[in-house]
Amino acid sequence: MRLSWDRILAKRVAAFRPCIRTDFSRLSAPPDTIHFTGGAPPVECLPTEPLAEELARAWRSEPTALWYGETEGYRPLREAIAARLARRGAVVDPDTILVTQGAQQAIDLVARLLLEPGDRVLVEGPTYFGALQVFEPYAVRIEAVPLDEEGVQLERLEELLARQPRPKLFYTVPTFQNPAGVTMSLERRRAVVELAERYGVPIVEDDPYGDLWYETVPPPPLRAFSEDVLSLGSFSKTLAPGLRVGWLVAPRYLMKPLIDAKEAADIQSDRLLQRAIAAVITSPWYEEHLTAARRVYGTRCRTLADALARELGDLATWRLPGGGFFLWVTLQGDVDSAALLPHCAAAGVTYVPGSDFYPDHRPSPSFRLGFTTLSIEAMLVGAERLGRALRAALVEAAGR
Amino acid sequence: MRLSWDRILAKRVAAFRPCIRTDFSRLSAPPDTIHFTGGAPPVECLPTEPLAEELARAWRSEPTALWYGETEGYRPLREAIAARLARRGAVVDPDTILVTQGAQQAIDLVARLLLEPGDRVLVEGPTYFGALQVFEPYAVRIEAVPLDEEGVQLERLEELLARQPRPKLFYTVPTFQNPAGVTMSLERRRAVVELAERYGVPIVEDDPYGDLWYETVPPPPLRAFSEDVLSLGSFSKTLAPGLRVGWLVAPRYLMKPLIDAKEAADIQSDRLLQRAIAAVITSPWYEEHLTAARRVYGTRCRTLADALARELGDLATWRLPGGGFFLWVTLQGDVDSAALLPHCAAAGVTYVPGSDFYPDHRPSPSFRLGFTTLSIEAMLVGAERLGRALRAALVEAAGR
Repeated sequence: MRLSWDRILAKRVAAFRPCIRTDFSRLSAPPDTIHFTGGAPPVECLPTEPLAEELARAWRSEPTALWYGETEGYRPLREAIAARLARRGAVVDPDTILVTQGAQQAIDLVARLLLEPGDRVLVEGPTYFGALQVFEPYAVRIEAVPLDEEGVQLERLEELLARQPRPKLFYTVPTFQNPAGVTMSLERRRAVVELAERYGVPIVEDDPYGDLWYETVPPPPLRAFSEDVLSLGSFSKTLAPGLRVGWLVAPRYLMKPLIDAKEAADIQSDRLLQRAIAAVITSPWYEEHLTAARRVYGTRCRTLADALARELGDLATWRLPGGGFFLWVTLQGDVDSAALLPHCAAAGVTYVPGSDFYPDHRPSPSFRLGFTTLSIEAMLVGAERLGRALRAALVEAAGR
Repeated sequence: MRLSWDRILAKRVAAFRPCIRTDFSRLSAPPDTIHFTGGAPPVECLPTEPLAEELARAWRSEPTALWYGETEGYRPLREAIAARLARRGAVVDPDTILVTQGAQQAIDLVARLLLEPGDRVLVEGPTYFGALQVFEPYAVRIEAVPLDEEGVQLERLEELLARQPRPKLFYTVPTFQNPAGVTMSLERRRAVVELAERYGVPIVEDDPYGDLWYETVPPPPLRAFSEDVLSLGSFSKTLAPGLRVGWLVAPRYLMKPLIDAKEAADIQSDRLLQRAIAAVITSPWYEEHLTAARRVYGTRCRTLADALARELGDLATWRLPGGGFFLWVTLQGDVDSAALLPHCAAAGVTYVPGSDFYPDHRPSPSFRLGFTTLSIEAMLVGAERLGRALRAALVEAAGR
């Protein structure tokens, strides 16, 4: 006899899904397809040597790092994170930092702490799909606040904050936003924090890209303006995503339940990697690494934007981000980029359609291009294919 | 203005707590106190050299292991886990194995998949406290099924399985149980699986100690008798807890939602460590390591039991486990080991009181002694202190 799993599973399972809803494996694409879908540092920017050295050192010098230990995270790593945040304008006590399995676990722990069925949750529209993936199984109502060139739109945000029941949180990626590339201005940051405080709604700030500006340092994290902001970060973009080391800065009052939740979730993060990362990010190498990475990403971004201007300047618009990993392209007219994706894939180029970044999966004329893992040559070919395929698909659609 | 976190937090947070409820930091104990509270391999059994070598190799040979990758886990590691399970009698498809952040995350993911408020959950009494820590915030009703020398008591189990609403799961540590040291007999295993199938209740088998027998190989995991058993394991006890690598064998039907849940929780486990562990556990070194570890743990267990017989043979009873990390000692009479703990701590010896291993935190005359991390000398001193302190405390209590 086999169990009837359908009857046994919790209702929330119906809301489980992969972070990207688009099933790329179902697209028919040639083997040499150029995928603008990535969101990771390129292999040549991975810190293989210095991390390997520090890991070997941690291993030899601290065999008890292979043991059970501090659930909240390795103290020198928390201090190093605090020191880096201080340089960006957010002064935080290392005791209010929890080390997590990447920023993703930080989002997950925050959801555990705050969300109940029926709660309202505000996100940006578009927003990071991995956050939607966490929030949706809590049976919450997710509402998207639109962005403009300075970040989330204040009037719409206030309108939604003021409504009852009060939202449980406002999730934002204020700096080099994923996917839209937008950076919240200094003035907007102050205003957003003030609004959230006025309406008693916690801000959850996701800030994995803040150190990856191209030419101009972005404004301080939202956490700089209020101790009530939950601020999360990651070494996935600045070092390597495979390490799974991120953090959560939380109001002091929340640290005890957060540490309990972390312990229930996985007891602790890997302790050797925490030691190696603490050594790496406090070494002179790290600043050189960031400087080099900024140059690489800035060059790739400009190259892609230039190529797009040539290939689909008449079809679409975009805004140059000041940092981060993504270009957000918006096609003219009332089109759904998800519907056009199969045509592009057939022509050997892919993107993540805009609909994946909205809680209601609404059709979107926008799509996200990730450029960090692609060579200049690949991007030029990709942009050319993209222009050709979109043009053909749009002409075909118009002719119908 | 500061946020009113008390009003904002989800109701489940009231059920968050550390895995061990006893607050050892509040005990007054001399600096040379001998702590029988550990549950980890000793430093001398940590696989520092071979793991360091394999990790360096993985690092050099596969820089893309620092990237995003397979959420379900590194395929060769899943194959190696399947091969080890097959040798223990459980034939499983590697595609039905999910690599997790230690077995703790496996428990957490299973709870996400199955539990809703008001559900009934069966555990053994006593049971692993880390499982209670996961289940409690789901607002479920946890019921403990007593153990005898062959494992969970069948009559009591059937009685609770038969009751409506059906339990959502039965969580068991069938082999070298934590904390009781009991191993479910072969006959009992068959009967338990049959009962659970008859009543349509999933079994969640937690099996971190199965490879750590002293002299006799234990019966096969429950997963050997039914594909509906969710079976979880870990390298925390056989290699090192600091690595945070475990696994979950699940019915095929559950793999898709489990992978989605893992992705939402932390995207993936660290990929370098998975590579290093896959290499280590398929090397001849691993079998030698297990053989040596079995000898160390068996010797420590017998030494402690002999010392206990001398020091408190007239006060308490225990059963020699056939493997694992723990001796479960039961004092005679109607006493609460938690109440006696401060006396023992003052005399320089500690244990985990039995009440920590029951969902209702009931007073228990039993306590758990972990012996793996202590030297023979320390154990002898610890047993002597334990006997003296308990004797004095019991005499004092009787005199009141």
